[in-house]
Parts: sequence; C-alpha cells; structure tokens
Amino acid sequence: MSAWEDNIRKVVPYVPGEQPKVDNIIKLNTNENPYGPSPRVEKIAMDMEKLKLYPDPAASALVDAIANYHEVSSDKVFVGVGSDDVLAMSFLTFFNSGKEILFPDITYSFYDVWAELYKIPYKAVPVDDDFRIIKEDYHGENGGVIFPNPNAPTSIAEPLSFVEDIVKNNQDVVVIVDEAYVDFGGETALPLVDKYENLLVVRTFSKSRSMAGLRIGYAIGNPKLIKYLSDVKYSFNSYTMNMPSIIYGVESIADDDYFKETVAKVVDTREWFKSEIEKLGFACPPSSANFLFMTHESIPAKEIFEKAREAKIIVRYFNKPRIDNYLRVTIGTRKEMESFLSFLKKLVKDN
Amino acid sequence: MSAWEDNIRKVVPYVPGEQPKVDNIIKLNTNENPYGPSPRVEKIAMDMEKLKLYPDPAASALVDAIANYHEVSSDKVFVGVGSDDVLAMSFLTFFNSGKEILFPDITYSFYDVWAELYKIPYKAVPVDDDFRIIKEDYHGENGGVIFPNPNAPTSIAEPLSFVEDIVKNNQDVVVIVDEAYVDFGGETALPLVDKYENLLVVRTFSKSRSMAGLRIGYAIGNPKLIKYLSDVKYSFNSYTMNMPSIIYGVESIADDDYFKETVAKVVDTREWFKSEIEKLGFACPPSSANFLFMTHESIPAKEIFEKAREAKIIVRYFNKPRIDNYLRVTIGTRKEMESFLSFLKKLVKDN
Repeated sequence: MSAWEDNIRKVVPYVPGEQPKVDNIIKLNTNENPYGPSPRVEKIAMDMEKLKLYPDPAASALVDAIANYHEVSSDKVFVGVGSDDVLAMSFLTFFNSGKEILFPDITYSFYDVWAELYKIPYKAVPVDDDFRIIKEDYHGENGGVIFPNPNAPTSIAEPLSFVEDIVKNNQDVVVIVDEAYVDFGGETALPLVDKYENLLVVRTFSKSRSMAGLRIGYAIGNPKLIKYLSDVKYSFNSYTMNMPSIIYGVESIADDDYFKETVAKVVDTREWFKSEIEKLGFACPPSSANFLFMTHESIPAKEIFEKAREAKIIVRYFNKPRIDNYLRVTIGTRKEMESFLSFLKKLVKDN
Repeated sequence: MSAWEDNIRKVVPYVPGEQPKVDNIIKLNTNENPYGPSPRVEKIAMDMEKLKLYPDPAASALVDAIANYHEVSSDKVFVGVGSDDVLAMSFLTFFNSGKEILFPDITYSFYDVWAELYKIPYKAVPVDDDFRIIKEDYHGENGGVIFPNPNAPTSIAEPLSFVEDIVKNNQDVVVIVDEAYVDFGGETALPLVDKYENLLVVRTFSKSRSMAGLRIGYAIGNPKLIKYLSDVKYSFNSYTMNMPSIIYGVESIADDDYFKETVAKVVDTREWFKSEIEKLGFACPPSSANFLFMTHESIPAKEIFEKAREAKIIVRYFNKPRIDNYLRVTIGTRKEMESFLSFLKKLVKDN
C-alpha cells in the first residue's frame, strides 16, 4: 500500500437497492411509487438556456412551496439532494457530542453508515420481537436519536404520543424523525416542531411524490436548527439543488389532488395484496408505508427472493440477523402486484 | 443557548456569488458561460414518467461519456453535484493525516471552508507579489495539497512542468489539481494521472460547458483513488446525480463542436476586453480563465464594484487582504462586455 493511502477515510459504503438496466422486469425493490410524477410536471417546459446560470443556492422557490404546503414559515425548511443528503448533513451537523447516538437495530441501513463515515459513536437499540421500537430504551443519556416513522424495513408506524415521548425525554440532544413513508399511513410529528426546538422531521419526494429520479428531500424544524443545518450545507456545497429539481419539485407540490389520488391507490393495493398473501401463509406487520415486510411460514425468504428474480420480479432481501427470513416488497401497480401474487401462488403450491 | 446546541458543528459557511432574482442586469460575478448549453441539450425530451425511479447510483452513462471524452477508462472517473461536491467529498476522503494541508492564500475561497468543516488543519501558503504560486513552498511535509490551475480569482495558469514538480514532490499525500477553468487556456494535468497514482484532477460542467444550473463536476484519477472516493460518496448519499443531470450531461459532452466554438468566443472576448481596459489604466494578470482579475491605477475596486452595481452590472469583489483592490470579472457576451466597457470608460473619464 502506498504512503498516501494511509490517510484515506476507509469506509464500508451503503449498498443501494439494485437499479437494473434491463426492461421487462417488475421492480419492487426500492420503494418507488409506480404512478409517476404529477402530469403537471410533464407539461413544464424548462428553459434550457437558463442552465448556464447557477441555480438559486437557497432553492427559495422550492423551500417556499414546501413551507406553504405544510403551513410553516420558510425559515423552518431545509432542502437537499434526497432525504439521504438531508440526513447526511444532519449527522454531520448535530451529532458531535462524542456520546453514542441511538437508533433501532432494525431500521434504515444507512444510519450506521453515516455514523461510521463521521466516526460518531452509536448504539443500535434492539426492537422487540414484533419489530416494534421500545420507547423507554431511548430515555437514557445519549448523543442524539434518529428513527424512521413508519420504520423501514418493518413498515410499522407509531402514534404521535409515542414519538412525543421520545422527543420529550431527549430535549438536550437533537432528535430526528425520518418520515420518508409517512404519507402512506403514518402520523406526522410536524405538530411537535413548534413545541420542541430540538426536533427535526425529515421527508422525501422519492416515495409518495414519485420523484426518486430528481433527488429531493427536506427537513422541517425550528429556525435555529435549520440555520445550523444550512450553515453546514453552505460549507459543503453552495448549490446542491439543480434547476430541474427546483422547477419540477415546485410543480409536484402544486398538484395535491394527483398526490392524494396516487397515494390512495398505493394504500388500496397494499391492503388488497396483504390480505391475499395472508391466505398463502405469509405474515407481515401492519404496514403504514408503501411496502410490506413479509415472511412465509415455510418457504425461506432467500429462496423466494431468488426465484422471484428468475421470474423477473425484483424485491429486496437483507441478509442480516433477525430479518433474514423477510422480504421487503414495494407496492407497485395493481397489475404488477397481481403478477407477483400469481408467482407466489404457484410457488406456494409447488412447495 | 439550549443544551442540544452544545454539540452542533458550528461553521462559517462559504458565501456564494449573488444569484440576483431581477432581470435586466449584466451578470459578471460567478464565472458562468454566457452562451448557454449545447442546442442538442434543448432537443432532448426527458421521459418524465421515469422520474419515479431512482437514478442509476453510479451515473454510468455520464461517467462513460466523460471517460470516453478524455480517453480514459471509466474506473478513473468520479462524478458529483458540481465540482464543489467532488471537492467536499475529496477533502473528507483524502485529508485525514492530522498534518496541515497546503493551498495558496489567494485561491478558491471554499478550500479553507471545507478544512474548517472537517476540522482538517491547513496552511494558506502566500502567493508571490504577482499572485503566482511558488512551487517550492509545497515541497515540505504536509497532509495533502490542493490548488486550482488556472488559479482563481487570479486567472493565472501554470505550465504542466510546474504542476508535475508539485505532484512529484508530494507522492506520499494526495494532490488535487482543480481545473475548473482549464478549458479557457490552461494546460491540463490529465497526462500525469497514469504516472502519479496520488493525483486527482477535478473538472466542472459549470464554466466551459455552460451548465452551472445542472450541477455536474467530475474527477479523474487512478482507479484506487476513485474507488476510495466512491466508497465515501456511497457512504454519504447513494444517488447524488439526478436523472436530468445524467441525461443532459451526456448530451453536452456529445456536442464537442459547440463546446469548442463557445469556449473560443469567450477567449476572444476576453483578449479584446483586456486590451481595451488596459488603455483605461486597468491592469490584470494574464488570464487563462473565463474571467479577468483587474485593478485600476487610481479608482478603488470597491468603488467600481458599487458603481457598477448601481448601473446594473454585477461583478465580484472580495473584501479580503491582498486582493481588496481587485475585481473578478466574468467574460460575458461581446455585447455585455461592450456595455461594461462603456461604463468603465465613463467612470474613468469622470474620475
């Protein structure tokens, strides 16, 4: 190894779900929304000439649209290149106490990656046997708390009172509630933002807004928290949001009818699909997200994952302790889920 | 101050050049290219439906296009959200020795911001009285080296032999050459990449490619270096490049005739404008960039900056030691520069 390699930050990176380059597959592995963005977005003609200029570093048009949508002032909103960017910046900004930060052991698998990247000590707190977060486990001294609600990959949502209990018992640190999936059935912590100045609520356009390809995420919190986060962002990259993200993002927010309609379709399909697979011997926790976390009474998850892949249906399998017999399956269109259901019926029958 | 605020990473952020929201101004303050992106970009119809999917995390289409353009293999290319993102990731990845990294005192004002953000010790090495980098000052022990070539805001380029001397004398650390402006007259260090595995060359689409609004930057280096950088990137955000960046970026690279033509126009305008302002008592170092670093023999730069602003012409003024009597003026269209020249002629006459 060369001398210059001694001082490299060596990390084990997060492995994102596969983005296959072939067509004719049913892609249920990365929790995208099958319906595509609002048709209003398609009608926007971007002025390409303007691409020669730097975008607005504050992305004010987008920030204002989000603020307006949530009925908060714009100084409570931070935007980033997907919620991953928002969360990465948040870890860097808020978790510098040297004490362990806390998050569930079964959760979004990026949290420990960010902690490792920034050398933040952390403790993965076990969820119970039903994959539920135990709120009392977050009451002790710590360097910060982060958890998704609904949680992923479990799909389980906790009520607002549960979230408030954790925030209330951690007022000396920053608490981040990652609400990537909240639009599909969770209860948002946004009403707590004015009550607790240490609470940051993070959202994304990649799931309910069908815009994973654009990379837009945001956070809502008290203006002091947002200012600290913005300062770090401006110390990292002045212009994170490009012009298409700002322009199309604003238009997505504007079309609330389409948003509600497509979210409702996903929820309907989820509930129908869940009831169907339960008849086949599958079980899953109640889902408040756009995916199901499913396990079969006799067929190993890994086997289902591999056979589905052969049938050109891609779902997510995590080869990790406690969840290695589960699949995380994104809710696609009704037609896609019918195909997957046919596949599962045949698999169970042949087993 | 609340207890949670104790563990915030508090930084003084970089202040980007103003992006004014009014029209009818001549904007010469952020080194954009006045000609707009290739007309081929305007003809691309993006399939908006696809925005529902995550982009390719490796941005392979764009990486391959860049690799092909520079005739290197794709494993030597890293892409990011503007060269700022590439550089921010590079600081985090490569500068972990605990020793001081070195860069010129008069240079891109983001370098010390990144160093502060990541708590990397650094030394700003004085350039000489003609604003030239003294290469011998970079020969001692250090934690890494970074400098732009051409340098900014000075516009001065150094020859390849000069760059090689610095790289050669620093083979135990990573050396980054920031070539944001190289297309306007600098000599690239790319031929050295195969010779020195510790050299990273960074480029951007924001200047010569007229795509500041899209946010695309890239780095070229040996595959080991690129792998370390990619691992950190994947530990930060899996999907940094959104679909429009990938699609339009590829198209920009494809239209090399337009690229060369617009770069040549900027260079022509620069040389004409420089000769004109010299007649008015201005001096500037020889420029190899798309801007001039100009000072007047009697009128203070700050005064020119303020009066230009009143006349709706925005240039960049840095209120910093050594350069507080200089303006950094982006080369706009011939017409824009004629307007600015008329303004300067009147100013000098009235003085």
